[in-house]
Amino acid sequence: MQAEIIAVGTEILLGEIVNTNAQYVAKLLARFGIPSFYQTVVGDNPARLTETLALEEKRSDLIFLIGGLGPTPDDLTKQTLAAHLGRKLVTDQAALDKLVAWQKQINKVMPANNLAQAYYLEGGQVLTNEIGLAIGCYLVDADHHYFILPGPPREMLPMVDHQVEAKLAALTGSKQVIVSKMLRFFGIGESLLADKLADLIASQQNPTIATYIKGFEIGVRITARAGNVDTGNTLIAPVAAKVQSRLAGFYTGEGEERNLVQEVVDQLKQQHLTVTAAESLTAGEFQSELASVSGASNIFKGGFVTYSDAVKTQLLRIPAEVIAKHTVVSAPVAELMAEKSREILGADFGLGFTGVAGPDELEGQPVGTVFIALAQRDQPTKVQEFHLAGQRNEIRGRAVYSGFKLLYDRLLK
Amino acid sequence: MQAEIIAVGTEILLGEIVNTNAQYVAKLLARFGIPSFYQTVVGDNPARLTETLALEEKRSDLIFLIGGLGPTPDDLTKQTLAAHLGRKLVTDQAALDKLVAWQKQINKVMPANNLAQAYYLEGGQVLTNEIGLAIGCYLVDADHHYFILPGPPREMLPMVDHQVEAKLAALTGSKQVIVSKMLRFFGIGESLLADKLADLIASQQNPTIATYIKGFEIGVRITARAGNVDTGNTLIAPVAAKVQSRLAGFYTGEGEERNLVQEVVDQLKQQHLTVTAAESLTAGEFQSELASVSGASNIFKGGFVTYSDAVKTQLLRIPAEVIAKHTVVSAPVAELMAEKSREILGADFGLGFTGVAGPDELEGQPVGTVFIALAQRDQPTKVQEFHLAGQRNEIRGRAVYSGFKLLYDRLLK
Repeated sequence: MQAEIIAVGTEILLGEIVNTNAQYVAKLLARFGIPSFYQTVVGDNPARLTETLALEEKRSDLIFLIGGLGPTPDDLTKQTLAAHLGRKLVTDQAALDKLVAWQKQINKVMPANNLAQAYYLEGGQVLTNEIGLAIGCYLVDADHHYFILPGPPREMLPMVDHQVEAKLAALTGSKQVIVSKMLRFFGIGESLLADKLADLIASQQNPTIATYIKGFEIGVRITARAGNVDTGNTLIAPVAAKVQSRLAGFYTGEGEERNLVQEVVDQLKQQHLTVTAAESLTAGEFQSELASVSGASNIFKGGFVTYSDAVKTQLLRIPAEVIAKHTVVSAPVAELMAEKSREILGADFGLGFTGVAGPDELEGQPVGTVFIALAQRDQPTKVQEFHLAGQRNEIRGRAVYSGFKLLYDRLLK
Repeated sequence: MQAEIIAVGTEILLGEIVNTNAQYVAKLLARFGIPSFYQTVVGDNPARLTETLALEEKRSDLIFLIGGLGPTPDDLTKQTLAAHLGRKLVTDQAALDKLVAWQKQINKVMPANNLAQAYYLEGGQVLTNEIGLAIGCYLVDADHHYFILPGPPREMLPMVDHQVEAKLAALTGSKQVIVSKMLRFFGIGESLLADKLADLIASQQNPTIATYIKGFEIGVRITARAGNVDTGNTLIAPVAAKVQSRLAGFYTGEGEERNLVQEVVDQLKQQHLTVTAAESLTAGEFQSELASVSGASNIFKGGFVTYSDAVKTQLLRIPAEVIAKHTVVSAPVAELMAEKSREILGADFGLGFTGVAGPDELEGQPVGTVFIALAQRDQPTKVQEFHLAGQRNEIRGRAVYSGFKLLYDRLLK
């Protein structure tokens, strides 16, 4: 079985709306392991839609037609498919009753073309519309399966969730399930990461391996098809172990919907520890990220944004002579920022961030040079020097994540 | 001239990302009045991409190929088009230098396939990448024009704005120029904004009016076609004045590539004034946004993240009794946060942010309740109460922007 998605709508071709429906259906197909090699957008034009249908029927057997079911004269999707397949359109009585009741409610005369919303293709099955008036349709014609769905996402989504999904499960026999695991990494570029997994990726069959940029992290998703979830997990386990051991040192946790910041907050919560920071180039972004996770108040009470040298001295009591001697972009200053912030607020951890976000170099240090220090109660302070790539705010964001990585590694020790 | 857009990327077919690039290019085509009857998505697969190209060349003469320019082995768009057209790939020296410099900056060994990012098709023109490393290409081959663009939107958008648009203008004969002006607004929903402009939008011909969500701001773009730029601007001026007067109070400046944060930083610089903040629910995000603008060090020296009540008392000397009496989510606490942070750091302005980001209510106040105070040297402090919609981080972000809006209005007084 192989699928294609056709979105019908001149408004997509004009850039007025973005084709989120295709993404929604594509995700569903991926979950069922149904391959889909093309997506097409075509306008509300019967000739071009017919041409597209003819092409797709040659290469795919499962065709999604989304949009063009509405009441306006340019909504012609069902009519076009009916003509193409030589089938009649018939009226669904329940949909017609709903239309009539709705017209009564708004006290208006029904335009004739409104009736088209209650049409479906003869021999097909009605897909009811929970939200709107235009019904969908599922039709098997010779070797092809067609799903005709309404264009407005708030109508299409429930139709997919409550009706299409069950039909796909039946169609695919659903002897197989799709199981996947996402491992996340930070501090390595996507191409270098792909290099390290090149032989695994090249030889992949089941499970498959794919890499994704997820914010500042890179996700490696391992996906298996199997007769049941347990078998799927058994297939994934050795591959996941290999991936993890090859990328040891860059690992930032597991889970598609999670990120390194959440891992750190969870670890701090579990270990009943608190954190603070003094931020120069990142100027509050590390602390703001902490607070982006709900429940952060258990592990974070506050901290400092010390952008200028003078404020570093005023709020953190870092001696001006230290800054003068080492320059502000230096390991000793980062160290004092971490230690003093921790001491002043009595936190278990303190982080210090200083560096050159750009666009210009600072104190003779090139753009991207960043020192991050991690102070811990009763432990020696660790300072690490980074050379980060990108523009100003990419460097700042990477610095923040590098700080989270330092803390994460310490928390897992 | 007739255009088609091909997005290349298995991640789109799998539903992992939504094809916003196609929308962006479609909008541009619409502005130029270039018809576009199809959009296609195809995976990172040379055979299927070649097949798609062959089909599109039959029906269109302007082809956009977006995505698949990256450094991983499955990025093969340029290679596939080159083979299809029988052209060689050549290396752009400037792009290569940038690649080498970038590798040097991060002190890592360059994987071999990274070099492909500097390739373009022989006989074509390089489209430089302002953000990333993979260059684009514009090529004329017989009757066809090809634009090859990178997939990441933050790389594609500036390439389209700064290079593709000018080439399309030249291609379309450009007896007409497209002139546009973007006005930005904050603090009003998109549908209410559209309501206020409904008659202008309904009667639009030349210039046209369109609205866009731009982060937390809403942009209203007014676009005119005219014989020259001056005439275009003359057409735009009265419409812009009308839009601005209908939305007075929500205005946040002009310019597609700018935002309210930049406006505030520029105003502070021009007026030689400084700002600080004490942030509770926003936890450093206001300050981090300030520092996202290069040159912020002239107007921002540092500030406070006072997440807990105790830290508000410790760092800002806000009496615990005031917090106990009014609760922490209150106008008096916001006022003291603004005033104390300003006094301690000797800044011209101080902002205080306190509120309920959720997911749970706090101190009997519902989620979304936020108090923001603006203190100014020798002026009475202003406090405003907000009831913001959305989830935790949307509320935090809107609170930050509401603070910027308060400061912006004061600076323009």
